[in-house]
Amino acid sequence: MASTEIEALVQQLARLPGLGPRSARRAVLHLMKKRESSFAPLLAALQTVSERLVTCGICGNIDTQDPCAICADPRRDARSLCVVEEVSDLWALDKSRLFPGKYHVLGGRLSALEGVRPQDLSIDALVARVAAGGIDEVVLAMNATLEGQTTAHYLAERLEGYPVRLTQLAHGLPVGGELDYLDEGTLAQALRARRPMG
Amino acid sequence: MASTEIEALVQQLARLPGLGPRSARRAVLHLMKKRESSFAPLLAALQTVSERLVTCGICGNIDTQDPCAICADPRRDARSLCVVEEVSDLWALDKSRLFPGKYHVLGGRLSALEGVRPQDLSIDALVARVAAGGIDEVVLAMNATLEGQTTAHYLAERLEGYPVRLTQLAHGLPVGGELDYLDEGTLAQALRARRPMG
Ligand SMILES: [Zn+2]
Ligand SMILES: [Zn+2]
Repeated sequence: MASTEIEALVQQLARLPGLGPRSARRAVLHLMKKRESSFAPLLAALQTVSERLVTCGICGNIDTQDPCAICADPRRDARSLCVVEEVSDLWALDKSRLFPGKYHVLGGRLSALEGVRPQDLSIDALVARVAAGGIDEVVLAMNATLEGQTTAHYLAERLEGYPVRLTQLAHGLPVGGELDYLDEGTLAQALRARRPMG
Repeated sequence: MASTEIEALVQQLARLPGLGPRSARRAVLHLMKKRESSFAPLLAALQTVSERLVTCGICGNIDTQDPCAICADPRRDARSLCVVEEVSDLWALDKSRLFPGKYHVLGGRLSALEGVRPQDLSIDALVARVAAGGIDEVVLAMNATLEGQTTAHYLAERLEGYPVRLTQLAHGLPVGGELDYLDEGTLAQALRARRPMG
């Protein structure tokens, strides 16, 4: 029906989460019909982000600036540090605007099954940030999965002896639940009721 | 939270049909995490299509080639011509693979309310295609709206006297229904039961 280039575009879009072949086709049609008002601005926005994408050297967030917008924001409370597994978790938490501090992205979780060891995650960098001082509280906001909780306990061991309060998100997260799939209400509750690491 | 460039990209994506702010954010995160396997190919596909997008000089379809893939396809039956309001209708019909002929896109429908007159649509070009000969049947596949049906009747008048059979999609389309929102089953039934223009 359409040319191979357009079919290729539909297929690329259909691979995005939340889009299937049908909605991808509708999206492409929409873009083609609104070349000036939709296609051009979307393409420009993608190009800009694609060119400038960097991993923040401080926290591991992905952004178009290094340090990232959060690390560079003087209004954020540098004494409170929230450790998350993935960038998507950081975004999910930060979207709720409930956490006023800064973040640290591990880049995964410890997993015997997948062979992910401590040195594969950004753990030494986390310890170094804490060792550098100025941090009062470290929130271990791992997923409520076995691997997430294993990672939290490992981090608690590694941070033992530093003058920081270790907390974790309240239980009440659905078992097996992944942070970035939760609604803001659940996240808010879990964050409000965060408790000292046991 | 994220830089203004990333927020701008989320907003552009959120305007696509089928995506909202939430899924747009997830899509952007997905792209940022899969730079090589998702972001780069999507950007390349968008660029290619953006650069090559043309309106077919014969039928009014939007494609990356002129004549479009359908007009250029010698296996399609040139004696059967299906007239649609919009490119999206052409795609919806053609996706069903039920119509073996060629198309003509009007670029809208007559509307007193919106001030759309015959000269605003690709009607002279349609008459010229029919006048040039070689066409046996013209399917007037307008939407089942008041304006769509008004347009169909106007086209029937304009094509009077030419040796072509005028048909329209079977009633049975939901009243007020727009072609490109219908499932393939409904489209198939309407196309199979198409009948002479009354
Ligand atoms: Zn950062
Ligand atoms: Zn064409």
